Amino acid sequence: MSVTAAEGFVASGCHAGVKKKRYDMALVVTEDRKPVTAAAVFTQNKFVAPPVVASRRRLAENGGRAAAIIVNSGNANAGTGAVGLADAEAMCSAAADALGISAGDVLVCSTGIIGTPLPMDKILPATPKLAKKLSRGGGEDAAKGILTTDTHPKEALVSGSSFTLGGMAKGCGMIAPNMATMLAFLTTDADVPREEMQRILAQASDRTFNTLNVDGATSTNDTVFLLASGRRGPPDLAEFADAVHKVCEDLTLQMARDAEGMTKMAALRVTGAASDAEARIAAKNIAENNLVKCSWHGGDPYWGRLLAAAGSAGIEFDPEKSGVSYGGIRVAEAGAPIPHDEAAVTAHMKEERIEIEVSLGLGSGEAQVIGIDLGPGYIKENVKTS
Amino acid sequence: MSVTAAEGFVASGCHAGVKKKRYDMALVVTEDRKPVTAAAVFTQNKFVAPPVVASRRRLAENGGRAAAIIVNSGNANAGTGAVGLADAEAMCSAAADALGISAGDVLVCSTGIIGTPLPMDKILPATPKLAKKLSRGGGEDAAKGILTTDTHPKEALVSGSSFTLGGMAKGCGMIAPNMATMLAFLTTDADVPREEMQRILAQASDRTFNTLNVDGATSTNDTVFLLASGRRGPPDLAEFADAVHKVCEDLTLQMARDAEGMTKMAALRVTGAASDAEARIAAKNIAENNLVKCSWHGGDPYWGRLLAAAGSAGIEFDPEKSGVSYGGIRVAEAGAPIPHDEAAVTAHMKEERIEIEVSLGLGSGEAQVIGIDLGPGYIKENVKTS
Repeated sequence: MSVTAAEGFVASGCHAGVKKKRYDMALVVTEDRKPVTAAAVFTQNKFVAPPVVASRRRLAENGGRAAAIIVNSGNANAGTGAVGLADAEAMCSAAADALGISAGDVLVCSTGIIGTPLPMDKILPATPKLAKKLSRGGGEDAAKGILTTDTHPKEALVSGSSFTLGGMAKGCGMIAPNMATMLAFLTTDADVPREEMQRILAQASDRTFNTLNVDGATSTNDTVFLLASGRRGPPDLAEFADAVHKVCEDLTLQMARDAEGMTKMAALRVTGAASDAEARIAAKNIAENNLVKCSWHGGDPYWGRLLAAAGSAGIEFDPEKSGVSYGGIRVAEAGAPIPHDEAAVTAHMKEERIEIEVSLGLGSGEAQVIGIDLGPGYIKENVKTS
Repeated sequence: MSVTAAEGFVASGCHAGVKKKRYDMALVVTEDRKPVTAAAVFTQNKFVAPPVVASRRRLAENGGRAAAIIVNSGNANAGTGAVGLADAEAMCSAAADALGISAGDVLVCSTGIIGTPLPMDKILPATPKLAKKLSRGGGEDAAKGILTTDTHPKEALVSGSSFTLGGMAKGCGMIAPNMATMLAFLTTDADVPREEMQRILAQASDRTFNTLNVDGATSTNDTVFLLASGRRGPPDLAEFADAVHKVCEDLTLQMARDAEGMTKMAALRVTGAASDAEARIAAKNIAENNLVKCSWHGGDPYWGRLLAAAGSAGIEFDPEKSGVSYGGIRVAEAGAPIPHDEAAVTAHMKEERIEIEVSLGLGSGEAQVIGIDLGPGYIKENVKTS
């Protein structure tokens, strides 16, 4: 009940028929149906999906407030043009009608396959039923309703000294900085000024969700919303920011563990880059390199592939100054292998989370990403024979 | 006998023991052991392998001439530091000794695994044997000696009106603009000024080898050499440039067909970009997108993934102006699906070579790349359990 843990929110989930069997719709609403402060972070993909356009427009028009979020999974309503935008607006209107509120206070998200119009004949009749199911205990149903290829719901919760902050998210493929086919919805009963909340959410997203790189692809639909009912008054802002970071981080790691076909994740640190920006470029290039990802899948400490990926990232790079460590054990120095405890490295590579440092020896620039291995599971998930 | 088709060249290949069973060394030498004009194109990876450093240094010092090229496969001598550079130099010296020429006139290439020192105890004793096997008919043995995960030798030949141009190459993974784990060796009996030949080779490489994108990874060892014996005098330069382009293109398509795990290739054209440079960025981003590559593997015309990859490429992009065609059949317009002959598209997607156009509708910028599908074969080839 993470998304309904904070005072002032109710939620529900249901099966509308977009997907064959599983829950495919979710609704999160303020308990009194009144709009509250909302912060949002959206995908940076320019091939942006209609629901993102619709939600962004609403927040711009009403000054950043929302009373409800309606979500469907199984179909992303992306690559659907004018029809898609009308469908996204119709989802908001249907929710508003069922709830007796203004359609301008309803945000909308979709996730799933792209390029196919939404089955509105399934979504519209299900919306009033979804509204009827709303309850203070409906958080878990809602968390189920937003999943696509995820294998289980993702929820997180922080109980602060004067507030509660809860959240739910879905992964799992097409995840790369910045943002991903990921949706995350956070609610709190703290009372935080909108600009402050937006700054806190953007920073937390940047340091958590945006460090996860599943397959280098950036989705058309990514959205993070944070709604604040304000019922428990103003929090300590530092404590609140820390709570937002923790919930986002917790959801990020749950997404990493549930990434499509994932068997291993790599916490990849690039250090000694000429700048933080160059470190981020190197980390992204390494984490997206299929040869590197295949080596992670096999638990193979093939450090040369890491340096080859860094060397072709278009950043400052000097083989003589480069090095690699796995699990804190230095295996290469000055671009060449060095004697090391091979048994310890092999043991570390068998773990689900591999710790890697690629040092460039040039400056003080640093970055960290969470990378995911590439194995048969990812292929199986993403190849559909036409 | 492609690399020995032109007058003035002999070649050989042998099994030295770097690989378990297959040929793993090759030698290409001028028939009279005298240095001739040489042009070269090298990898742009900054984590550059010692043989590339050694060859580049020789050409700089001797003004672009060579009498021999010695190659080993099975080990790339990359990520090997100072030891690796000494080993590359030692390979040149061993070839020079066996041939009775100056070590400064010997070029060297290695390809295979990276991060492990060359087994010089295998390579050095094999070199005199390799020299003894040199013959005018040794081109095919040489073409076998340079292979790694390739399944068959790649050779090409153009007979011009006054010259012959032949070549051999190896692929197959880690191939992306610019250059790849690819080696290509061309020889001709035409007499072409060095600067002219360098310009022609660089342009042909850019338009052929550099349009092939197997997995987005750029290798540490890529090298293309063109040696000209000059025996048949100056050619028509336009005809010669065309021949170089044709041989490089022929080898490129052979590499595409033999790419690791490849079952389909996509000739992907991006049109209507704001500039040629932006078209190239979009084409690269699309061809390296794992979701797109998986859709090619399944023969699935999942056009939305193409536009999502273009939209996140960091270039100018407007969904309303974008469209996609498969095999000349328009399936999406203004970022949304349009009615089309689905049976014809499905039939086209079953072919080994898929023709795709992504139109951005913004300007006259264009680019084409050859992309490769991503399926279980690639994973199998590149995952080694440690």
